[in-house]
Amino acid sequence: MSQTIKLPETMKAAVMTGTRQIRMEDHPIPKPRANEALIKVMAVGVCGSDIHYYEHGRIGRYVVEGPFVLGHECAGEVVAIGENVTRVAVGDRVAVEPGVTCGTCSACKAGRYNLCPDVQFLATPPVDGAFVQYMTHREDFLFEIPTTMSYETAALVEPFSVGIHAARRAGVQPGSAVVIMGMGPVGLMAVIAVKAFGAGTIIVADLEEKRLNAARQLGATHAIQVNRDDAAAIIEELTGGIGADAAFETAGNDRALLSALKSLRRGGALAIVGLPPQGDIPLPIPFIVDNELDIFGVFRYANTYPDGIRFLSSGMTDLDAIITDRFPLAETWAAMERALTSKSDTLKVIVYPNGTD
Amino acid sequence: MSQTIKLPETMKAAVMTGTRQIRMEDHPIPKPRANEALIKVMAVGVCGSDIHYYEHGRIGRYVVEGPFVLGHECAGEVVAIGENVTRVAVGDRVAVEPGVTCGTCSACKAGRYNLCPDVQFLATPPVDGAFVQYMTHREDFLFEIPTTMSYETAALVEPFSVGIHAARRAGVQPGSAVVIMGMGPVGLMAVIAVKAFGAGTIIVADLEEKRLNAARQLGATHAIQVNRDDAAAIIEELTGGIGADAAFETAGNDRALLSALKSLRRGGALAIVGLPPQGDIPLPIPFIVDNELDIFGVFRYANTYPDGIRFLSSGMTDLDAIITDRFPLAETWAAMERALTSKSDTLKVIVYPNGTD
Amino acid sequence: MSQTIKLPETMKAAVMTGTRQIRMEDHPIPKPRANEALIKVMAVGVCGSDIHYYEHGRIGRYVVEGPFVLGHECAGEVVAIGENVTRVAVGDRVAVEPGVTCGTCSACKAGRYNLCPDVQFLATPPVDGAFVQYMTHREDFLFEIPTTMSYETAALVEPFSVGIHAARRAGVQPGSAVVIMGMGPVGLMAVIAVKAFGAGTIIVADLEEKRLNAARQLGATHAIQVNRDDAAAIIEELTGGIGADAAFETAGNDRALLSALKSLRRGGALAIVGLPPQGDIPLPIPFIVDNELDIFGVFRYANTYPDGIRFLSSGMTDLDAIITDRFPLAETWAAMERALTSKSDTLKVIVYPNGTD
Amino acid sequence: MSQTIKLPETMKAAVMTGTRQIRMEDHPIPKPRANEALIKVMAVGVCGSDIHYYEHGRIGRYVVEGPFVLGHECAGEVVAIGENVTRVAVGDRVAVEPGVTCGTCSACKAGRYNLCPDVQFLATPPVDGAFVQYMTHREDFLFEIPTTMSYETAALVEPFSVGIHAARRAGVQPGSAVVIMGMGPVGLMAVIAVKAFGAGTIIVADLEEKRLNAARQLGATHAIQVNRDDAAAIIEELTGGIGADAAFETAGNDRALLSALKSLRRGGALAIVGLPPQGDIPLPIPFIVDNELDIFGVFRYANTYPDGIRFLSSGMTDLDAIITDRFPLAETWAAMERALTSKSDTLKVIVYPNGTD
Repeated sequence: MSQTIKLPETMKAAVMTGTRQIRMEDHPIPKPRANEALIKVMAVGVCGSDIHYYEHGRIGRYVVEGPFVLGHECAGEVVAIGENVTRVAVGDRVAVEPGVTCGTCSACKAGRYNLCPDVQFLATPPVDGAFVQYMTHREDFLFEIPTTMSYETAALVEPFSVGIHAARRAGVQPGSAVVIMGMGPVGLMAVIAVKAFGAGTIIVADLEEKRLNAARQLGATHAIQVNRDDAAAIIEELTGGIGADAAFETAGNDRALLSALKSLRRGGALAIVGLPPQGDIPLPIPFIVDNELDIFGVFRYANTYPDGIRFLSSGMTDLDAIITDRFPLAETWAAMERALTSKSDTLKVIVYPNGTD
Repeated sequence: MSQTIKLPETMKAAVMTGTRQIRMEDHPIPKPRANEALIKVMAVGVCGSDIHYYEHGRIGRYVVEGPFVLGHECAGEVVAIGENVTRVAVGDRVAVEPGVTCGTCSACKAGRYNLCPDVQFLATPPVDGAFVQYMTHREDFLFEIPTTMSYETAALVEPFSVGIHAARRAGVQPGSAVVIMGMGPVGLMAVIAVKAFGAGTIIVADLEEKRLNAARQLGATHAIQVNRDDAAAIIEELTGGIGADAAFETAGNDRALLSALKSLRRGGALAIVGLPPQGDIPLPIPFIVDNELDIFGVFRYANTYPDGIRFLSSGMTDLDAIITDRFPLAETWAAMERALTSKSDTLKVIVYPNGTD
Repeated sequence: MSQTIKLPETMKAAVMTGTRQIRMEDHPIPKPRANEALIKVMAVGVCGSDIHYYEHGRIGRYVVEGPFVLGHECAGEVVAIGENVTRVAVGDRVAVEPGVTCGTCSACKAGRYNLCPDVQFLATPPVDGAFVQYMTHREDFLFEIPTTMSYETAALVEPFSVGIHAARRAGVQPGSAVVIMGMGPVGLMAVIAVKAFGAGTIIVADLEEKRLNAARQLGATHAIQVNRDDAAAIIEELTGGIGADAAFETAGNDRALLSALKSLRRGGALAIVGLPPQGDIPLPIPFIVDNELDIFGVFRYANTYPDGIRFLSSGMTDLDAIITDRFPLAETWAAMERALTSKSDTLKVIVYPNGTD
Repeated sequence: MSQTIKLPETMKAAVMTGTRQIRMEDHPIPKPRANEALIKVMAVGVCGSDIHYYEHGRIGRYVVEGPFVLGHECAGEVVAIGENVTRVAVGDRVAVEPGVTCGTCSACKAGRYNLCPDVQFLATPPVDGAFVQYMTHREDFLFEIPTTMSYETAALVEPFSVGIHAARRAGVQPGSAVVIMGMGPVGLMAVIAVKAFGAGTIIVADLEEKRLNAARQLGATHAIQVNRDDAAAIIEELTGGIGADAAFETAGNDRALLSALKSLRRGGALAIVGLPPQGDIPLPIPFIVDNELDIFGVFRYANTYPDGIRFLSSGMTDLDAIITDRFPLAETWAAMERALTSKSDTLKVIVYPNGTD
């Protein structure tokens, strides 16, 4: 381990000790293994899954047992490297792709490493996350960012990756008409993604005006307030009666899912990103068959970071519409509470483990 | 119209005059338009949709009003051609692709002509079908068959096309493990199709032993009797605990649909061919998302006839396992009743409008 | 033919009567057939193929015999329609897709209608072109343009379509690094196209500074002057030593073709658009095999007009960098001479058959 | 390392000590690392690249320096495993995929691990090959074979993989018409592969009758003797004047390459597998562009072993037509000489390092 930066002995960590409980602790700074780097964590976004673990202590079969560190949308600086590391160097500013995969199973070899059964994903029990001052990570999941890109933008390459992956799966093309249901952070990043893919018509829907406004700033061409507007009629009119080429469901909601499906043209594609709490949703099979629709589950992402960084650093997108709240690491509890309780005011909350840069 | 074959003045037609009613009538022999050929119909398969119209008088928004001719799986001989016809000649033996499309809409131009909104499809109201001695058809939907191929096999290129199209949409590859639910004629033809695509493991499921036996003869590697066997356990074992690469639902049944979905590996693909009577079926969205499944509606087919003919004429497949009943045109009513009422004994019923060749 | 606009008896046509000869003639105004519209031609771009016919009287097997009308990049107003026309109405402003295909051959049905053997393409002998005041065209190759789009921009949807088609064939994605050799009008439109597909790095090369400047205005991120700069070294540096994801050859030049090929990363894709005068070009087969490159011929385009119109009318692109010269129809000879003889000053020449709007 | 099989202290190795020199040596049996297995090598095929190293001491930039072990088409039995091995167990019969990749670069992550820049490939300098009694190999490149599959067939999964990969790249479908130039072992295995993909017409060409006969036995529908027959005329006739859907060049020959290219229909695909000695080959660019051809370099393969094993073990193919010569390890020199000097009589030579099973 060639270490050229003077590091302290210990670091601060924001540790979840129970539902809606986070405690600051002193932890030893971890040592990178041969193919790992040590990252000084500079910015961490709060994701819906963090909030869900924080509130409920579990997501499906993943259960938080004992003290646990949340946070997986992160970026930082390389401050030390393991002995075999060649891809990054001390001093590099990097975005962190949080899922470390085996590289040897059939899913990894086929280019769909998001389906690797042995993935180690930050902040998915039992793997600790990024609400710490320093963390180690395998070098091949670190991606250097340009000097013009902030750490908080680099952290958002993670949710942006979901949008890129959904856009790839749904076959979004220049000129496509795309409907996106749900303008939480994932939906908003998907607006940026489909715009990056050249979508010509970007129709978004949500309950909250604040979110719809953010979507407009990021490139949505039409915004539907779902309680007030007749979504189906508006989408039909905007697509010349034909329907959308692609629709994304990010709201985790049965009505949104059906609206997305019904918005499609014959031969259109639905990407399902959101998880509805009830699990099973009745879908109209004859409609799917007669219109020969495609439905694609979207689970995380693969091979998105280099493109995601290039696009978000191109200067075409201003993420200020998304980042609404900022907290230092010591106030991680407050950050989580804000994200949990202020859903109509808050979009993306960022935690800064080592101060703002 | 260059006509070199002596034709009679009138022909026999089997006309549906009400639910479960078919009457033989004398009709004038139609004259081909400039880009049409006149076909002496030699073999017509009875399809599930024919039976549905025959029993209920409608399928969804398509309603039989007044006298109507059923039958769309057909083949015959070209006996006259319109003045601009160049693709076929009098004397050609041809398979008839039943859906004549506009060729000018965006779906047609994009190669998905099965989604053409202006398609004229045989035996779909108000377009009469093939239970007649002679019919006209646009030349570009006629495909010459080799002398070694019988007319009845040529008629079955139609349901075989559904299997080809489903296999293409689901990405079946050599070595793929495929599950097919429902061993009616469409399911059985799908067995042949996925075998043609090189599938290594072909697992089929049905209630009827007769159908499972037919599937085994056509290439199924494993057959599951769904009331007796534990389909999920068997599929898991046969795929080494991984799941199938692709699954087809052809039974039109909610349990079959869920079994098909649950049989898939992560990243697998479901092709939905069958229409369940209840319409809406609850689907497990988190399962679809977490496993990043693809679901593809399959509506008819496009660009399948030349390949379908080449494959069915290659001598690798013996359709005798499928064709269980044969009737002359005068007994079309009996043919329809057989198909409707003898589901456990009957697979494919063929009607011969001009005698057997 | 429902005709609501008062038309004159005759019109002006610019007729090529020999190499480098064009004469103005009075022609009758053509009558649209049942599925055609009559177009009042408002803007026509001069294409390299027009110039080649004008100078040499032929392109390969296509020979100009007798009087001939050039011009195929065009847009105008619908002033009359045939009796079966439903897709356009009198008064519509439309872009004209110049190749009218049969809609019935296997290429058309498979969605690759640019390969239709029976295509009728404007200004490809013996089909006359668009340097006329009025012309008829099949309705399904007319595409309404928004009121915000000028006729000259609509005319340029044609060369833009080549860029879209090349980008699709080469698999350009958001973030892709793309090299484009040759900054004539096709190369410049390709810059716009790959930018529309989200390309992150767009490296262009040409001899002429004027063209490189135009490319920069349209979105090229780096411009190489091929006589002065070391293209290979620059591309290697700009792609981090990896090579480009895709390269387009539009210059019709052996050196450009090899430079494009050599610029690629392993697994990269080359789209060949330009036709080198010598025909055969030695290609390094071991390089192609060892790096597993894709090489795609690009012949015209298919299914590009709706997307092309949507994108060029989105306001993101200013075509003033491309349109350098404007002539009325009466000066078509001067327009052709300018395009032929002023290659370093002239990019795209537009002819206005009915005055400027 | 859990070792349950009693192993000797040393093993025999066939070591290349100079061009056309091979010497038997006693080597220590290697110890598997944590993620490796020790394989008792049971069958090794002699590949054209082995012969090239043997005769010339190099292939391009790969130079044999010092003693070197050839052989990379191999299969054997797992006789010991490293401490972390979970995918294989002692006693497993396995096919060995010879290229061990990094699993962490962008090519590996994108599913194109054959383009990994850090691949360690058996018998590619400086990595020793399989003409030994025992060798270690990373577990994730070992694939269990069924008891019905012989080791020599398992060894041939390697060249079969090239055919599968070429068929995938060229988009071979059921019913496709495919031309394959060159009926050496790679070409012959490609015949099996395209048949597995359902190709309906398989036209092969070579100089040697013996090879053409082997091709016929393996499934070629038409065989062309290139010195005697007019290949172009035959292919045109067999494809109804349209041309082939796909062509493979495996002969490493300029004439074969041009014949393959010219055999294609518009929109067809050429897969280049063979390396011509002269390197550069003049290709007709206008023909490629006007017909919108695809040309794909084929470099080794990726993700082919499970499918390859499933297909070759299905009993549909008898490899006896390919395996012409068999030698024990002690006679590796004779095996190489036979492969080098008897090209008209010899197809595939197999070496058995531990006796025949």
